[in-house]
Amino acid sequence: MPIDTRHPKEIRADIRSGKLTGVTAGLGAGYVQANLAVLPRDHAYDFLLFCQRNPRPCPLIEVTDPGSPEPVGVAPGADLRTDIPGYRIWTNGVLAEEVKDATPYWRDDLVAFLLGCSFTFEWALLEAGIRLWHVEHGKNVAMWRTSIPCRPAGVFHGPMVVSMRPIAAPEIAKAVTASARFPSAHGAPIHVGDPAAIGIKDVTAPDYGDAQHFRPGDVPVFWACGVTPQAVALASKPPYMITHSPGHMFITDVPNGALAAL
Amino acid sequence: MPIDTRHPKEIRADIRSGKLTGVTAGLGAGYVQANLAVLPRDHAYDFLLFCQRNPRPCPLIEVTDPGSPEPVGVAPGADLRTDIPGYRIWTNGVLAEEVKDATPYWRDDLVAFLLGCSFTFEWALLEAGIRLWHVEHGKNVAMWRTSIPCRPAGVFHGPMVVSMRPIAAPEIAKAVTASARFPSAHGAPIHVGDPAAIGIKDVTAPDYGDAQHFRPGDVPVFWACGVTPQAVALASKPPYMITHSPGHMFITDVPNGALAAL
Repeated sequence: MPIDTRHPKEIRADIRSGKLTGVTAGLGAGYVQANLAVLPRDHAYDFLLFCQRNPRPCPLIEVTDPGSPEPVGVAPGADLRTDIPGYRIWTNGVLAEEVKDATPYWRDDLVAFLLGCSFTFEWALLEAGIRLWHVEHGKNVAMWRTSIPCRPAGVFHGPMVVSMRPIAAPEIAKAVTASARFPSAHGAPIHVGDPAAIGIKDVTAPDYGDAQHFRPGDVPVFWACGVTPQAVALASKPPYMITHSPGHMFITDVPNGALAAL
Repeated sequence: MPIDTRHPKEIRADIRSGKLTGVTAGLGAGYVQANLAVLPRDHAYDFLLFCQRNPRPCPLIEVTDPGSPEPVGVAPGADLRTDIPGYRIWTNGVLAEEVKDATPYWRDDLVAFLLGCSFTFEWALLEAGIRLWHVEHGKNVAMWRTSIPCRPAGVFHGPMVVSMRPIAAPEIAKAVTASARFPSAHGAPIHVGDPAAIGIKDVTAPDYGDAQHFRPGDVPVFWACGVTPQAVALASKPPYMITHSPGHMFITDVPNGALAAL
């Protein structure tokens, strides 16, 4: 995969001008990418509280002031309405439109939430020398809704979604310590081993993403997944919500390594 | 100092019944103690966001549902109106009353915030073999308002308050790593050395607490302090607020060690 090693500011400028329109994998090597969820101020308290109560699936790295599209903490000068290559507009929990520029959909009462994503801890696993089958084979991870309930907050409730990566047994401890350094990007695994213990009936048939290949001796290791907050938010059918399109993330100015020390 | 090693449930029952009325130092050995800030729902979003944006001084460990005095996440069955040995009632930012039972002051729109406290990381420092002068001499730490601004959120803004402990130079790295394990209790130091660099003119004259004694070779090490959120909240003169009385903390069911893995 070719890597665009320019500073995120330059990459975001190309996204804003429409020169870059695809998925963000491989863009901004070494910088934290983030999931986007935008909700009206009326829903923002419940969603903020939901994230605070469920930090593993919902690791907040930025919350904007109502009406402001600028994530001053992680990318000063950026504009969350234009600097992501794809958006989804949701009304009453139903996908209404998929757009490249969210400016016409912005409102003065909107609050944007940026949540850490698995790219950061996968980078840490790879740096630690752990092989990831889905990365080597250009696939998505496998994801499931589990029997683990999130702690509810106001109107938001639902099960935790997890992602699974097969890890060689001798590498499990290393996978735990390497990812645990990044609590703002889902952190350590929430479960190691027996899929049935968290309500997963068939580890070869994911609810989302791609089935994974197990090498002999591989153990399924499960991390809390960023699909959780979006699924939970949409399940409550908020009248209005904006998210990024899958794979089209926001690229922050925060180096992956710095996230461990935030 | 005598240590009450009973489970927090038993200690809280004695506090609720009025048998224990003093400060909580030495109560519930090994369990996380927490600062209390209670605000009306109208102010809760701004305060929650302030804590999210300033995790070092404001490490949230629990936020209750509006009207509920039960911290179900960290002490199920407890009652935050009665299980703390002393409360302060504030109106428009002015101390109105100091009481032993907050039940008559509770309202259906109140949200309680519990924030981690320095007891947890001081325990980690002591366990790591680091000497703390103020603990050995039964004094309070030294605290200052600094020139470090907190990131504002809604109506809340103000400078970060820090606590300072003199640490022997060869022990500084150990003090960093031991406290960094507990981000929910202020985490790693925010500054090591030169007091002037963070706006402290005289390291022998604290704004709050007791002056500390420096042994030869000791370096001033500064941690974000739990006085920050209370000072910031009161500075905005909220119409109504309840806090714990200084030193009269809430004792949770969470073992100190578990806080590192929350």
